[in-house]
Amino acid sequence: MKHYSSITEVAHPNELLDLAIACKADPYHQSDLGRHKTVGLLFFNPSLRTRLSTQKAAQNLGMQVLSMDVSSHGWKLEFESGVIMNSDKAEHIKEAAAVVSQYCDIIGVRCFPGLTNREKDYSEQVLSAFMKYASVPIINLESATSHPLQGLADWMTIKEHTEKERPKIVLSWAPHPKALPQSVANSFVKYMDVAGVDLTITHPPGYELAPEIAKGFKVNHDQATAMQEADFIYAKNWSSYTEYGQVLSQDPNWMITPEKLGDAFFMHCLPVRRNVVVSDAVLDSPQSLVIKQANNRTFAAQAAMISLLKA
Amino acid sequence: MKHYSSITEVAHPNELLDLAIACKADPYHQSDLGRHKTVGLLFFNPSLRTRLSTQKAAQNLGMQVLSMDVSSHGWKLEFESGVIMNSDKAEHIKEAAAVVSQYCDIIGVRCFPGLTNREKDYSEQVLSAFMKYASVPIINLESATSHPLQGLADWMTIKEHTEKERPKIVLSWAPHPKALPQSVANSFVKYMDVAGVDLTITHPPGYELAPEIAKGFKVNHDQATAMQEADFIYAKNWSSYTEYGQVLSQDPNWMITPEKLGDAFFMHCLPVRRNVVVSDAVLDSPQSLVIKQANNRTFAAQAAMISLLKA
Amino acid sequence: MKHYSSITEVAHPNELLDLAIACKADPYHQSDLGRHKTVGLLFFNPSLRTRLSTQKAAQNLGMQVLSMDVSSHGWKLEFESGVIMNSDKAEHIKEAAAVVSQYCDIIGVRCFPGLTNREKDYSEQVLSAFMKYASVPIINLESATSHPLQGLADWMTIKEHTEKERPKIVLSWAPHPKALPQSVANSFVKYMDVAGVDLTITHPPGYELAPEIAKGFKVNHDQATAMQEADFIYAKNWSSYTEYGQVLSQDPNWMITPEKLGDAFFMHCLPVRRNVVVSDAVLDSPQSLVIKQANNRTFAAQAAMISLLKA
Repeated sequence: MKHYSSITEVAHPNELLDLAIACKADPYHQSDLGRHKTVGLLFFNPSLRTRLSTQKAAQNLGMQVLSMDVSSHGWKLEFESGVIMNSDKAEHIKEAAAVVSQYCDIIGVRCFPGLTNREKDYSEQVLSAFMKYASVPIINLESATSHPLQGLADWMTIKEHTEKERPKIVLSWAPHPKALPQSVANSFVKYMDVAGVDLTITHPPGYELAPEIAKGFKVNHDQATAMQEADFIYAKNWSSYTEYGQVLSQDPNWMITPEKLGDAFFMHCLPVRRNVVVSDAVLDSPQSLVIKQANNRTFAAQAAMISLLKA
Repeated sequence: MKHYSSITEVAHPNELLDLAIACKADPYHQSDLGRHKTVGLLFFNPSLRTRLSTQKAAQNLGMQVLSMDVSSHGWKLEFESGVIMNSDKAEHIKEAAAVVSQYCDIIGVRCFPGLTNREKDYSEQVLSAFMKYASVPIINLESATSHPLQGLADWMTIKEHTEKERPKIVLSWAPHPKALPQSVANSFVKYMDVAGVDLTITHPPGYELAPEIAKGFKVNHDQATAMQEADFIYAKNWSSYTEYGQVLSQDPNWMITPEKLGDAFFMHCLPVRRNVVVSDAVLDSPQSLVIKQANNRTFAAQAAMISLLKA
Repeated sequence: MKHYSSITEVAHPNELLDLAIACKADPYHQSDLGRHKTVGLLFFNPSLRTRLSTQKAAQNLGMQVLSMDVSSHGWKLEFESGVIMNSDKAEHIKEAAAVVSQYCDIIGVRCFPGLTNREKDYSEQVLSAFMKYASVPIINLESATSHPLQGLADWMTIKEHTEKERPKIVLSWAPHPKALPQSVANSFVKYMDVAGVDLTITHPPGYELAPEIAKGFKVNHDQATAMQEADFIYAKNWSSYTEYGQVLSQDPNWMITPEKLGDAFFMHCLPVRRNVVVSDAVLDSPQSLVIKQANNRTFAAQAAMISLLKA
């Protein structure tokens, strides 16, 4: 593959999954692949898991890491074409991406959506600009609308916890005090589509995901019914797509509790707000897979980087 | 030892000291020990010496380093149990510590006290939470009430500069414009206790250290008398323990000067305010050991990490 | 050489240039030189190219890197001698430089001018203090008045694009909304002096560079005449030296356009404001060398570090 910006670029997702599993089994089996190779990690937004797991993955491959918090270490970048740059933006993405490409063999980019302009966010302005102007592969460290390293780690975690060919998976919206992106939910749905699981999405009315994401999947506004006999419950908050970026509900009845979970496994991408998104009792139970999901982030990143280095 | 959170966990402090001295003699004699090992350094507060010397120590051992300024690179963490996390804290320490444990073989944590709630600070909420919820050893990079890497480096520096079995050491409070923690003073006293030196503590009334720290040591409110015939003067400001976190005095008469120093060596953990804590003439004299103390921080950290990796 | 603070310290500039070219031809030909060596990079100001290219250069040599954003990761430093440090500056450069010297084999420092006090800026207070108080070589990552890594990379880029013994080079002032340092222009002129090219400087009246920099070079206030038959046009904004730090003109007629460029190559150190300093059409043309200049920064830094390690 040329970039790892979304699962769409992955010709053989099952091979990528197998590679991630192989990396977990032996993290250092390709520790010479990254010799004299450098990955640049550009953060436009905060990061804990992504920052550490992607560095760890690079180090497992013997790669060097150049990490930069763009806004605090550098300056604002301009992404529009043809403008007269006399405001607060000191450099154009055309130069920045081309320059960083010369120091790095792969560039990772994290840039969240503004959540005010849906068209702009779903055009993936920042990520697309890097793909357009960089001369090396781009790896998506969570963009405006997708988080494919999380999606791959999630798929891997599900594989590790069921023998079923077609487990029942429920993606449930959950309450949150702030407006959050749809990126994790979008990537989870796309990966579950590829995985061929029995996926149900449940959320209050008004929280429909983008039509191109949700199409073909069961959507149920009744959480309890949706969750019946689920093997895995994936909880996640997102703000409204239709009333873009709005928090339409903070209804605490949508919080995941042990009663709702039943015998299912619990999943979440983290960070998670305890007793808002999910109760302590769920997170502290052995049914919670959230720490394992985070661990698998390393191997998802490692598999993606191997694929890009070998492409 | 399981963690290096304070000297209390060190079963054989003399062996740790010897190891630090051995690391200084040959910094690379265990440069394979850290192969495929990673230390995560989490900074909740600013750091220069600790940041650089701990990284240097890890590199001397061949370890990878993942360094993170938690508040600027990530988000606020919740340390209380059972709360409904709907305020400004995005992640609970339970998840954060468990997740980072998967990327790291050792986690270093620096978190200063708030200096408003003594009970809370002396419970070492943050450091304790990491020890409780992480699954790997924790190394204290200066906590609310102790700074054991500094204490070990200080002991090492004293050893290098005297042949005496029982040198006379004076820990002197010194003025400072801001309220500072008691952590360095606490760890210095604990290490001097183990070292079996002749320790005198001198400070203005109201600056008594915690009873469990100071017990058994000579305390003298008259700085001049206390310092007579000292071999080493260790200056440090701290805010009041009894009137917790208060600056009760900024009396410039407590500043260390060449007259007070006499033939003694001068020590301080740095950063130091020149001509407030200590005069230029002392710091610029050959009797000042402050730069050597800072150098020994690397080898103290290296010894602690070796001990944790081999535990 | 002892330091790489400016070209003045370089006894044999042509050898340094040849070394940089050799590093580009084979970046890893001295990858053992940096074994068990550490470079500390101290940033008092933002940086993208310098941050990444200098790290990359160090990694090419097998060196460890300790990178620190002084103001956000640490605290304010005092540079004046003899002061009573009871304000907001927590550490004196004397201690900071001496301490960091113990963790590093080379220290890189980036510190921009204040642009309010010319005498202070041109005394290079910060860089000079590091050279005075550090016990290891200092490498200038852009100081108040010079940017010698950029100068070397620029010379290298010119060498790669002409066979002429004495190409005609024009350094043109260009408009910018903010007050910028003279550092890049100063270093470019100094390197061009060494290179023995035919240099013309063009700028509006009031933008004369420091007399010790500009002396002996042709200065022309008419941009069009100055640029005639140029082989290379180097555009750069700087604020006034005579009316120190002032923006005397933002005249858009000084922007570089294809008409002005003619057949010449275009150079700029980046970051560049598109359609303010230079038009899109120039930057997007094959005559633009700006991306190549940035790439050469890695090899300029590598050559400087090799020279310092071998000194």
